[in-house]
Parts: sequence; structure tokens; C-alpha cells
Amino acid sequence: MNSLGVKVLAFDTFGTVTDWFTGIAGAVARTVPDVDAAAFAREWRSRYSPILARVEAGELPWRRLDDLQTETLHEVAAVFDVALDADQSRALVRAWRAIPGWPDAAEGIRRLKRDFIVCALSNGTVALLTDMARHNDFAWDVIGGSDLWRHYKPARETYCGLAELLEVEPDEVMMVATHQADLDAARSFGLRTAFIERPDEWGGEPKDDSGSPDNDFHAPDLLDLARQLGC
Amino acid sequence: MNSLGVKVLAFDTFGTVTDWFTGIAGAVARTVPDVDAAAFAREWRSRYSPILARVEAGELPWRRLDDLQTETLHEVAAVFDVALDADQSRALVRAWRAIPGWPDAAEGIRRLKRDFIVCALSNGTVALLTDMARHNDFAWDVIGGSDLWRHYKPARETYCGLAELLEVEPDEVMMVATHQADLDAARSFGLRTAFIERPDEWGGEPKDDSGSPDNDFHAPDLLDLARQLGC
Repeated sequence: MNSLGVKVLAFDTFGTVTDWFTGIAGAVARTVPDVDAAAFAREWRSRYSPILARVEAGELPWRRLDDLQTETLHEVAAVFDVALDADQSRALVRAWRAIPGWPDAAEGIRRLKRDFIVCALSNGTVALLTDMARHNDFAWDVIGGSDLWRHYKPARETYCGLAELLEVEPDEVMMVATHQADLDAARSFGLRTAFIERPDEWGGEPKDDSGSPDNDFHAPDLLDLARQLGC
Repeated sequence: MNSLGVKVLAFDTFGTVTDWFTGIAGAVARTVPDVDAAAFAREWRSRYSPILARVEAGELPWRRLDDLQTETLHEVAAVFDVALDADQSRALVRAWRAIPGWPDAAEGIRRLKRDFIVCALSNGTVALLTDMARHNDFAWDVIGGSDLWRHYKPARETYCGLAELLEVEPDEVMMVATHQADLDAARSFGLRTAFIERPDEWGGEPKDDSGSPDNDFHAPDLLDLARQLGC
């Protein structure tokens, strides 16, 4: 417990606790040797939020993230004029399960776990996030995958669904993310928010890490967030 | 991986990894001083499976385990001619979140986690099981609470729901329990099974720990199961 009354920390995963750029660019380089792996990874990631938004808008039926990533992967492959066979496609989609954690992530989660229930709250499925956690030694108490609610952030059902699952009020949950849109949505549904700076998320391309004065916390990494929270 | 192809271990919690008798009898003794705490705890526990079965039979609507335990608690209090106020009732129902693990449980789960995805698969809710895990340092990868499926074991939806959530086949999951009925149900839906002996589950009253030749494994505790599985 703490001055804000927060009991649960809900962490975004892709970008906030893991370095998708390094993981995916590396997987692309290994799997499709003759392509600009960094550009390919960025293009793929840039198609992530839009296709989830189409699901939430009702334009596409709900499907697991792996299925949506398979679809956008083939769009990107077409842009780069690359033909992917089934094994390559599967290897690349599965690579999202083995992207590396940021150097502070595993220890930061472990430290924050002393005083808070720590959860992944991600658009990945429970199975994907379980593999990611085992790969990186993330000691989550609970894995909040999108398949629990069959909705994608920033849908209300995900943020409030986690609070309901943990039998707490929304304002007893603090969303931790490096994406202000995720935090803005969380706050609109009553959650507290903490911004984590990840200037290298896009592999050297500029990223806005200014956050917002509306956030309850702003930290350069999870260890600093733990310090600010007295863990 | 292993010769059976099992990827996931699904653990029953009340009795298999935790000692409900000691935890609940202790809570009763603290909360209701003038009652036979051991007899009260056994009577309460004996009303657990029947009320869940009534939910699965459609006689009662699905409700969280805490709500069902509150109902049976008041039945037991009436049997023992005890009047419980709201604070006492809440304290006793919450005591199921803080029952102690068996001495081998935390280390056994940790050792098995090296080679298997380790999950709670329990009739408790995710929130209850999260509190239990934090209290006992159970390093679950995934917490399979009954509220994920709004069904209680031995319903098919729980066993097969966990397999689906983890994106594996039922025969890639092994149920680990000290109750043969739980294992028989799991096996009927295609899961593998391992019986764990817990002769003291009922606090000195006799318990049948013979298991069944149909189980894939039979072990005196989780450390021995880990040894048998080569972890």
C-alpha cells in the first residue's frame, strides 16, 4: 500500500518491459538475410496498432495476436518484395515471444513485486506472454493477456477487466507504460498511470518520451519507479 | 519436454500444494475461540465440493468461490451453534488465501518450473490464488482460476480451458493433484495425471492416498515428482 492506494501494477509489455526492436530486427536478419532488417522490423511494428484498432472497431473479428501479426507480416513482406514460406513466417511471428527484456526489467519487476501485485497487461495472448516471461525471468503474479477478454487495448474491457479479475477498484491499479496513449486510455477508465522512458524503443529513431503531467509517476526505468514507490 | 510430451503442469491447490486443514483450523481457533476448530474446519471443507457440484448441475448460478464459501460457512456455524458477525465471516473466508503451503511445495514448484510451464488450476478465483501464491512464494507461470471459465472442476471447461489458454493440446498438460476424482476427470478429457500423497490433508483423519494405476505418476511429494521427471 502507498499514498495513492495502489495495489496492482499493470505493465505494458512490447516496448515497456521488452525491447521489441532488437528482438525482431535480429529475428528478421536471421530469417530473411537479404532485407533491411531494421526497416522491416519498424514497418511491421507500425502495422500493429492499426490492425488491433480495426478489430476493436468491429471491422475484423477478434483473433489472437499471432494471427493478426501473421497477416501484417505478409503485408510487410510484400512491401519489401520478400516471399516468406510457412516456416519463416512462423519463426518471425514466434520471435515476439523471445524478445529480450530491457536491462532493468526483470529486476525492476521483482523489486516492485515486494509491495505490489505485478501483472502483464498486454495485447499478446496469455501463452505468448508466458513464453516471454519465462524467456526473460519476469516474475509476474498474473498474466493479463488479451485473450482473457477478447479485446485489445485501449479497449475498456482490458483495463477494467484486470481490475475485476483481481477484485480491486480501477483506481487501485496503476498502468505502467512507455506509450502515452495507453496511459491516457487507462486514466480515462479510472486507473493510475506511470510513464517509463524508453528512448531506444524504435532502435535509434526518435521517440517522444515526454509523457504527460497527468501521469502519477514518470521514471527513466523500472528501478527508478521502484525507488520512487519506496520499494 | 519429456517422454510423455508434457509441456504444462496444472496443480490443484487446496490440499495438493497447501495445507488447508492447518490454515483453516488455525483461523477458526483465532476467530471463534469456543468451538472445536478442527471439527469446524473439516465440516466446512466437506461442504466445499457439494456446493460446487450444485453450481455445475445448474441448481445455483455461478458465483465466486468466496461467495460460495460464505454460504457454507454460515451453514457450518449453524451446525456448531455459533453466531458469526460480518468481520468474523470475512476473516474466515479470507483465511483460504493465506493457508500455508506444504513444506515441499514452493521449492517443488520452482524446480518443476525449470522444465515445465507451472500453473495453478483451482476452484479458487485468480485473485484468491494470487494472494495464496504471494503468501507462499509459489512461482506460478500462470494462475488458472475458476473465474476465467466460470466453471468449477471437475467440469471439462476448466481442464480444456487451461490447455486452450496455453495453446497446447490436452495431452500436453499433466494434472497434479492429491484427489483421484480430480485426476480421473482430467484424464477423461485427455490430460496426463500425477498423484501426490498428502496423508495429513484432513489433519490426522484417514485419507486414501493409494491413487490409481491409471495415473502416469505417483509421488510422495513435489520434490519426488521433480526427481521422477528429471528436473
